[in-house]
Amino acid sequence: SSVTIYYSLSASYTDSSDDETSPRDKQQKNSKGNGDFCIKNIKQADFGRREIEIAEQEMPALMALRKRAQGEKPLAGAKVVGCTHITAQTAVLMETLSALGAQCRWAACNIYSTQNEVAAALAEGGFSVFAWKGESEDDFWWCIDRCVNVEGWQPNMILDDGGDLTHWIYKKYPNMFKKIKGIVEESVTGVHRLYQLSKAGKLCVPAMNVNDSVTKQKFDNLYCCRESILDGLKRTTDVMFGGKQVVVCGYGEVGKGCCAALKAMGSIVYVTEIDPICALQACMDGFRLVKLNEVIRQVDIVITCTAQPNRNNLRTPELTWERVRSQVDHVIWPDGKRIVLLAEGRLLNLSCSTVPTFVLSITATTQALALIELYNAPEGRYKQDVYLLPKKMDEYVASLHLPTFDAHLTELSDEQAKYLGLNKNGPFKPNYYRYGNAFLFSSYFDRPVGGSRDNRVKKETNI
Amino acid sequence: SSVTIYYSLSASYTDSSDDETSPRDKQQKNSKGNGDFCIKNIKQADFGRREIEIAEQEMPALMALRKRAQGEKPLAGAKVVGCTHITAQTAVLMETLSALGAQCRWAACNIYSTQNEVAAALAEGGFSVFAWKGESEDDFWWCIDRCVNVEGWQPNMILDDGGDLTHWIYKKYPNMFKKIKGIVEESVTGVHRLYQLSKAGKLCVPAMNVNDSVTKQKFDNLYCCRESILDGLKRTTDVMFGGKQVVVCGYGEVGKGCCAALKAMGSIVYVTEIDPICALQACMDGFRLVKLNEVIRQVDIVITCTAQPNRNNLRTPELTWERVRSQVDHVIWPDGKRIVLLAEGRLLNLSCSTVPTFVLSITATTQALALIELYNAPEGRYKQDVYLLPKKMDEYVASLHLPTFDAHLTELSDEQAKYLGLNKNGPFKPNYYRYGNAFLFSSYFDRPVGGSRDNRVKKETNI
Amino acid sequence: SSVTIYYSLSASYTDSSDDETSPRDKQQKNSKGNGDFCIKNIKQADFGRREIEIAEQEMPALMALRKRAQGEKPLAGAKVVGCTHITAQTAVLMETLSALGAQCRWAACNIYSTQNEVAAALAEGGFSVFAWKGESEDDFWWCIDRCVNVEGWQPNMILDDGGDLTHWIYKKYPNMFKKIKGIVEESVTGVHRLYQLSKAGKLCVPAMNVNDSVTKQKFDNLYCCRESILDGLKRTTDVMFGGKQVVVCGYGEVGKGCCAALKAMGSIVYVTEIDPICALQACMDGFRLVKLNEVIRQVDIVITCTAQPNRNNLRTPELTWERVRSQVDHVIWPDGKRIVLLAEGRLLNLSCSTVPTFVLSITATTQALALIELYNAPEGRYKQDVYLLPKKMDEYVASLHLPTFDAHLTELSDEQAKYLGLNKNGPFKPNYYRYGNAFLFSSYFDRPVGGSRDNRVKKETNI
Amino acid sequence: SSVTIYYSLSASYTDSSDDETSPRDKQQKNSKGNGDFCIKNIKQADFGRREIEIAEQEMPALMALRKRAQGEKPLAGAKVVGCTHITAQTAVLMETLSALGAQCRWAACNIYSTQNEVAAALAEGGFSVFAWKGESEDDFWWCIDRCVNVEGWQPNMILDDGGDLTHWIYKKYPNMFKKIKGIVEESVTGVHRLYQLSKAGKLCVPAMNVNDSVTKQKFDNLYCCRESILDGLKRTTDVMFGGKQVVVCGYGEVGKGCCAALKAMGSIVYVTEIDPICALQACMDGFRLVKLNEVIRQVDIVITCTAQPNRNNLRTPELTWERVRSQVDHVIWPDGKRIVLLAEGRLLNLSCSTVPTFVLSITATTQALALIELYNAPEGRYKQDVYLLPKKMDEYVASLHLPTFDAHLTELSDEQAKYLGLNKNGPFKPNYYRYGNAFLFSSYFDRPVGGSRDNRVKKETNI
Repeated sequence: SSVTIYYSLSASYTDSSDDETSPRDKQQKNSKGNGDFCIKNIKQADFGRREIEIAEQEMPALMALRKRAQGEKPLAGAKVVGCTHITAQTAVLMETLSALGAQCRWAACNIYSTQNEVAAALAEGGFSVFAWKGESEDDFWWCIDRCVNVEGWQPNMILDDGGDLTHWIYKKYPNMFKKIKGIVEESVTGVHRLYQLSKAGKLCVPAMNVNDSVTKQKFDNLYCCRESILDGLKRTTDVMFGGKQVVVCGYGEVGKGCCAALKAMGSIVYVTEIDPICALQACMDGFRLVKLNEVIRQVDIVITCTAQPNRNNLRTPELTWERVRSQVDHVIWPDGKRIVLLAEGRLLNLSCSTVPTFVLSITATTQALALIELYNAPEGRYKQDVYLLPKKMDEYVASLHLPTFDAHLTELSDEQAKYLGLNKNGPFKPNYYRYGNAFLFSSYFDRPVGGSRDNRVKKETNI
Repeated sequence: SSVTIYYSLSASYTDSSDDETSPRDKQQKNSKGNGDFCIKNIKQADFGRREIEIAEQEMPALMALRKRAQGEKPLAGAKVVGCTHITAQTAVLMETLSALGAQCRWAACNIYSTQNEVAAALAEGGFSVFAWKGESEDDFWWCIDRCVNVEGWQPNMILDDGGDLTHWIYKKYPNMFKKIKGIVEESVTGVHRLYQLSKAGKLCVPAMNVNDSVTKQKFDNLYCCRESILDGLKRTTDVMFGGKQVVVCGYGEVGKGCCAALKAMGSIVYVTEIDPICALQACMDGFRLVKLNEVIRQVDIVITCTAQPNRNNLRTPELTWERVRSQVDHVIWPDGKRIVLLAEGRLLNLSCSTVPTFVLSITATTQALALIELYNAPEGRYKQDVYLLPKKMDEYVASLHLPTFDAHLTELSDEQAKYLGLNKNGPFKPNYYRYGNAFLFSSYFDRPVGGSRDNRVKKETNI
Repeated sequence: SSVTIYYSLSASYTDSSDDETSPRDKQQKNSKGNGDFCIKNIKQADFGRREIEIAEQEMPALMALRKRAQGEKPLAGAKVVGCTHITAQTAVLMETLSALGAQCRWAACNIYSTQNEVAAALAEGGFSVFAWKGESEDDFWWCIDRCVNVEGWQPNMILDDGGDLTHWIYKKYPNMFKKIKGIVEESVTGVHRLYQLSKAGKLCVPAMNVNDSVTKQKFDNLYCCRESILDGLKRTTDVMFGGKQVVVCGYGEVGKGCCAALKAMGSIVYVTEIDPICALQACMDGFRLVKLNEVIRQVDIVITCTAQPNRNNLRTPELTWERVRSQVDHVIWPDGKRIVLLAEGRLLNLSCSTVPTFVLSITATTQALALIELYNAPEGRYKQDVYLLPKKMDEYVASLHLPTFDAHLTELSDEQAKYLGLNKNGPFKPNYYRYGNAFLFSSYFDRPVGGSRDNRVKKETNI
Repeated sequence: SSVTIYYSLSASYTDSSDDETSPRDKQQKNSKGNGDFCIKNIKQADFGRREIEIAEQEMPALMALRKRAQGEKPLAGAKVVGCTHITAQTAVLMETLSALGAQCRWAACNIYSTQNEVAAALAEGGFSVFAWKGESEDDFWWCIDRCVNVEGWQPNMILDDGGDLTHWIYKKYPNMFKKIKGIVEESVTGVHRLYQLSKAGKLCVPAMNVNDSVTKQKFDNLYCCRESILDGLKRTTDVMFGGKQVVVCGYGEVGKGCCAALKAMGSIVYVTEIDPICALQACMDGFRLVKLNEVIRQVDIVITCTAQPNRNNLRTPELTWERVRSQVDHVIWPDGKRIVLLAEGRLLNLSCSTVPTFVLSITATTQALALIELYNAPEGRYKQDVYLLPKKMDEYVASLHLPTFDAHLTELSDEQAKYLGLNKNGPFKPNYYRYGNAFLFSSYFDRPVGGSRDNRVKKETNI
C-alpha cells in the first residue's frame, strides 16, 4: 500500500480551454530570448513563481541545501535529465539542483499533473522544460525525447518517477548509459522495473531506490495518510466524522494512520486484516477486528488500505451505485442502506486530496541527496545494482527537516557514544531497523532487496 | 531499552519471617509422597493454585495449546530443564509443557522473584522445583545443580532466562550437550552470551533467541509500557498526570508508549533524542524535541527510556536527593524546585510495577513454540548457531491470542493469495518487516548489522 | 464565541457571469406556470434538486418528522415567512415545513450565501422564494418585502436569522403582528435584538431563542469546530498539522474543539485564557497556558476562539502582511519569522470552511420544533417575552438524531424512574444543566435570559 | 454520580493489631504536655509529619493562603469544629486554618479512614483531634461529642462532611447555633440534609454547599475519574486495557472521564444512557450507544457511572459470582464467559483507588475559602439558607492552583474588559455557566429544578 504518485490539486489560475493551439506548434521565448522549452504559455510565469515561493516555505531542507552549497557545488558538472510530476514542489527541487551546480532538462511523468504556471516560471528561469497539462500519449514521449535528444548535451544522471524516462533511453539511446553515473527512481513501479532489469543482468548503471528510504516511507504513509484521510473525505463529501461507523481494510502503515485520525475525530472504527500480527496490533490499539461481511451492512464508510483489489465485492447485481460527486459513489442496498465509497475503492490519497508540501519536501530532499551520493561516489562504491539510500543519508534527510519544528537534537558525548558503540554522527540504527512497519514489498519483487554492501538489505535470505 | 526481567508484585500470602529454617534443611513431601523438590513450604500449595488459576484466565494461548495437544503430544519424550522467574505465569507455562508431553525440572533465575506459594503448588502437582524467595548466592547455584545433576535423568532441552543455567552446564557438565537438542533463551543478556559463544565457535547446539520475536518485542515494549508507565507512577507517587510537565528521554518503542499514555492523560510531554529519524517521529507525533538541560528546571517528572546511563547527570553537589518512598526520590535544586525521579533512573517497568499477565502470556507462548520447533525440527534445519523464531511461528503466537479479543481474522481467497504472492497460511510479511521499530541491538552485539558476513537476521528460517 | 452564520462553499454549477440581467428584471415561471418568485435562473432547478437530495441523507430528523406528519399536520394553517441562508439544507427544512402543513415565503438573510440552483429547485417546487447570489443592498430589502407584502396572504409565524425580517415588519407593517403567533430566531445578533425589544417593552409576540438550545450549541461549537478547524486550515493552506506549533486564544467550547483536534493530529498546542477556571481546564487537558506575546514568535499558527477583537495586535508597523491566498495571510516579522493567520483573525468556521450538513440538521430540526411549539401552544403558555426551547423538546431534537448512529437509548423502568425522581420520557436534566460549557452570553445581553415559566433561566438573579 | 467520600489507601506504617487497648482508655500527652486529644498512638507523630510534608507539595493553594495570611489573619477568632476524613491532606487544611488564625477541634467522619500517624502528628502539633482507625459506632459519636462538648470553648464555625456533626449539634446542643456563623458542608448527603432542613424552615444559620462548586465538581468527577479508573482497575486486577471490551453505564462527567481514559489505553468502549442529549454526546465522541443486555455477554468489564442501583441485574441464579481478590468479583455465565465486576458495582473511585492529593487540594481550598467567606461576611449577606460558593471565589480557587502548572493567565486590558462588559478581576462567567455538565442533583433533592419557587442556584452571591 505504498503511495508515490501525487495528483496535484493546487489552484490553476488559467483555463486550458482559453487556447486550443498545441504547445508543440507555438514559438515561445522567455524574457531573455531563450526558447529551449515547450510549455503551455510563458506569460503565466508570474503566477507560477508565486506558487513556487509558497512551496519554498514548506521545503526548508532544500533551502538549507542551497545555503550550504554557496561555497562548494556538489553537483557541479552534473547534467540531470528528469521525468516527474511538474509542480511547485518539483520546481523547488529543480532550482535546488541548479543551485548545487547541476544543469537540468525535464519532462512530465504524467499527462495531467503538470501545473502550467509552474512550468512557465521554470522556463522563464532558464530551465528546459517540456510539459503541459493535457498532453497526448504522443506528446508525452515527444517531450521525453526532447529532454534527452539534444545536440551538444548529454545527461550523466537520471531522476525518474515511474521508469518511463529510463525505459526510453534504454530503448532509443542505449549508448547514452556510458556517460550516466546513476539512476534515482522514486516510484514502486519504477523500482520494480529496475529490479527486473537487475535480475535479468541488464542494469548497466547503479540505481538508487529512494522509494523505500525510511523517512520517505513514514511520511508517504503514516503521517501523510493520518491527515489526508480526513481531508479527502471532507473535500469529497461533507460528512461529519463524529459517530460515523467506518471499516478500514488493512492495518499496515496506511491503515494505522487512517484509523488513528478517524478515532481521534470520534468515528467508530473497525479493522479487517489477514496478518495475525497486524491484527493483534489493531486489537491492542482499540479497534474491533472483523471480517468485512460482518459489518458491511452497518458501516457508513469503507476505506481500503491494502494492495488488494477488493472493491469488486461491491459490484454485484443487487447493489445500486450512485455517483453523487466526482470521486464519490454511494453504494445502495435493496433496503436503502447506503455506504460512501471513495475513488471507486482505489487508493484515496492518490486521488482525492492534495499531499502536503512538507511530505513532498521529504521526497525531494531524498532525491537530491541520492543524486549527490551517486554523482560523487568514489569509483567502485556502487556497482550495476539497485541500492537503498545509505542509512546515514536517510538520517540526514530527517535532520534537515528538524529545524522546521525548532527541534533540538541531543548530541552524544564521546563517552556515551563509546558506551553505545555508535559513531557520534550516526548512523544510529542498523539498516534493518524499521522505525515502524515501513515497508512491505514481498509481493512486488522476485527477490527482496539487494546488493552486496552494507546498505543493502538484500543479503537477508530465506533459507 | 528492551525489558525482559520481571519483578512480580503479586500478593504473597505468607511471610518469609515465619520460618527461619532453610528449605535446604527441610524434608518435605507432597500429598502423593513425592519429595523431589526443594521449596519454602509445601503447605502453601492451595494458595498458589489459586494464583495459577487466575493467571490461566489471561493466558488463553497456552490453554489453547493444551487443548490442541490432547491427541498428539509434540513434546513427548522432551526433558526440559528450565531456569526462569517462578511465578504463576511460569507455572501455567510449565503445566502446558507437561500437558504437551514434556518432563520438567526447574530453578529460579532470580533469588528474589520466586512466589513461594506457586512453587508449592507446582511441587504438589509433581514438578521438581528448586526455588524459594530469598535464596543466597550459594542456594542459587545449588538449586540449578539439583535440576541437572540427577541420576537417571538427562535433559534434552534447555529453557533459560539470563544464561546462568546454560553457563552452569557448559562449565560443569559439558558432555550433557550431546543429548541436548537446543536452547531457548529469552533475555537480552542471555542472548548476548549466546552470540558470543557462537562467535567464538563454542556454541555446540542450536539456540533460539526468543527475545527478539516481533510479537514479544511489541508487547514487552510498546504495549506494556503504555500501561505500566501510568501504573508505576501512580503506585509509587499519587501524582495527578493532568497538567504535569514530563520529559521522556528516548523515543524508541518504550519511549513512544510512555509518551502516548502520558499525553492521553493530559500531561505536557517533551522528548529528547539523539537519532534524527526518531526525533522527527517525535515532532510529527506532537512532542517538542528538546535537550534535557533546556527543560530540566521546568519539568515535574523525568523518565528515562534509553539504554544510556544518564541518571548520573542529577548526581551533582548542588542537588539534594530526598527519598520519599521506596523507589521514589525527589531531586531538589537549591531554590526549592523538585523533580520526581523513579527507580533512581533505572528502567521503570523493571522495578516499580507489575507486568500484565497477558504480556507474559505472549512470552510464555513464544517459549513453548520455540521448544516445540527445536525439539521437532528435522535433522539439519538448525545448526550450531543462534536463530530468530521463524516468522510463521511468530504469526502463530499472535493468532493464538486473537480469540481473547473475539477478533476475526480475514482469510485470503486462493485468488487473492495468488495475486499477492502469499501463502494463504502465512508468513504474510518478509522476515525483515518489523511492524514498528521493534528492535535495536546494535549496541549489544559485536557484529551488529551483519558485520563482515551476512548479519544474524538471516538465520531466521521459514519452515 | 457562538457561531451561527454559515457561508456555504458547496459547489455552484453555474457562473453568475453568464447572465448580467438582474433577476428583478426577468419574467420566469416554473414548469407549472407559477411565477410568484424571483431567483437567478429557473433552469437550474434540476441541479439544485440533486443537492437537496444529497442533503436529505444527512438530515434524518427532518425526514423522520415528515414521516410522522403523514397523518396529522401540526403546522396546518401556518403561514411561515422566513429569512435565512438559502442552501440545500434550508430547502430540506422548508420542504419539511410544507409537509407538516405550512405555507412558506422565503428571502435570504445574506446577499452572498444563496445557492442559486437550490433557489431554482424550490421555485420549481412551488415555493415563493426571493433570493439570489450577489444581491445589492436594495435587492435585499426588496426581496424581504416581496415575502411579506403580498395581497391575500398574511404570515402568522416568523422564522428569522439575524433579525432583519423581524425588523422590517416592525418598521413597515407593525399591524401584521396582530396575527403573528410567534418568532423563532436563531442568531446571536437577532436574539440580542429581541431581548432589547423585550427590555424596552416593545416585544409584542412570544419569541423563541433557538440559538441557545443545548443540542444546537454543542453542535455549533464543540463538535463542529473539532472538525472544521482541520478542514478550514487544510483548504486554505496545505499545511501539515504534525509538529506544528499552534496557539489557540480562548478555551471555551470552540477553543476546546480546536485544541482537541489539533492535538490529535500531532500539533503542539498552547492556550491563552482570561478565566482561571477555563485556564485550569486547559492545564488539566494537557495544554500549556501562556500569554500570547510569550509564544507569538515561536508559533506557526494563531487561532482566535474568543469574542474579543484581538487580531489588531498584529497590525503594527514592523510587521508585514502578505496575502497568500484568499482568506490566508502571512504575517512576517522583520527577521523573516512568519505566522499563518486565517480570515484576518475573524472566526474561522464562519469564513473558511463548510459546516457539515449534520450540524445544520440539528439547527433546522430545532427551528422546526420551535415553530410547532409556538404555533400549537395553548393560549397563555407564552407571553410577550423571549423563551428558550423547552428542555424536553431539546431532548427530542437529540433523540431524533440518534437513529443515524444506530444508537440504542436505554429506557428507565418504572421503578428506576421513581427512584431517580424522573419522568420516564424526560426531561432528564434540570434546565440549568449544561452538558458542557455550552453558553456564554453574559457579554451580549443586558439581562441574561428570561421569561416567567420553568424553561426560562432568567429567574436566576445576582443579588 | 458525584463522589465526595474518599477512602485513603496511603501507606500506614503501623499495624493496628500491635496494641489492643482502646484509645479511650489511654492517657497520652504530646511532647509539650498537652493531652486534649484522643488518638491511637502519639509516638507515630514523626511518621505522620512525613506524610503531611509530602501532601503539602501537592497542595500549593493552601500553602499560598498561608503565605498571604502572614500579615492579616482572616480567621482570627474563628473556632472551627470539624468532622471529616482525617488524612494527610486534611492535616494540611487544618494547619492552614490555624495559620489563618482559627482554633480547631476535629473528629473523623468515617470510622475506618483515619490515618493514625497523621492524627498523631496533629495531636503533637497541638490540635485537639479525636479519631482513630477502626472506631466503633459508639466511639464515633463519643469523638464528635468530645469536639463540641468542652468547657470554656464554643465553636462559631462548622466544617462538616456528611452532616453527622451538624446533626449532633442540632440534637444535643441546639443553643450552640446562636454563636455559630455558618456551616460549610462538602458531601452530597450532607447538602441534601441541609436542603431538607431549609425546606422545613429549621435551618438556623447560613450554610454553604461546597460540593457543587464548579472547580470542585470538575476535579471530583471528570479529571479525577479519568485517572482513577485506570488506577483502580490496575490495582485490583492486573488486566491489560489494550483490546479489552468495556461497557460504561452512564455518560455524565464520571462516565466521560472513564470512557476517555479507557479509549486512550486501547479499550473498546460501549456506553449506555437514558438521556438522549448525553447519548448523542457519546455518539459524537466515538462510542457505540447500546443497551446493557446487548453487550453484556461480549464485554470483559462493566463499569457503573450512574446513580442507579443497576448492579443487581447480575445477581441472578444462573450466574456464578467468584471473589478473586478484595473488591474484585468475576461474574460467570453457565458457558464459562466471565466479566470483571469491581466493588460489587458500587462507585469505583470511592472504593478501589486513592484520590490524588491535587484533587483533595481543590476541595480543601474550597472549604477554607468558604469558611473565610462565611466568617467575614457582613451582616445580612447570608440568611438562613443554603448557598453555593460565590462565582468569584470559585474562580479564586482555580487561580490559586494555576502556579502549579506554571500557567500564565492573560489579563484583560481596560478596553477589552469594557468591550466584553466584564470586571477585570472576574467573575468571568455568569453563575449558571457550568464549564461542562458539572452537576446533576435532580435525584437528590426534593425540589430538583427550582420547584415551586426559584431554584436553589439563585442563592449564589457575587461579593
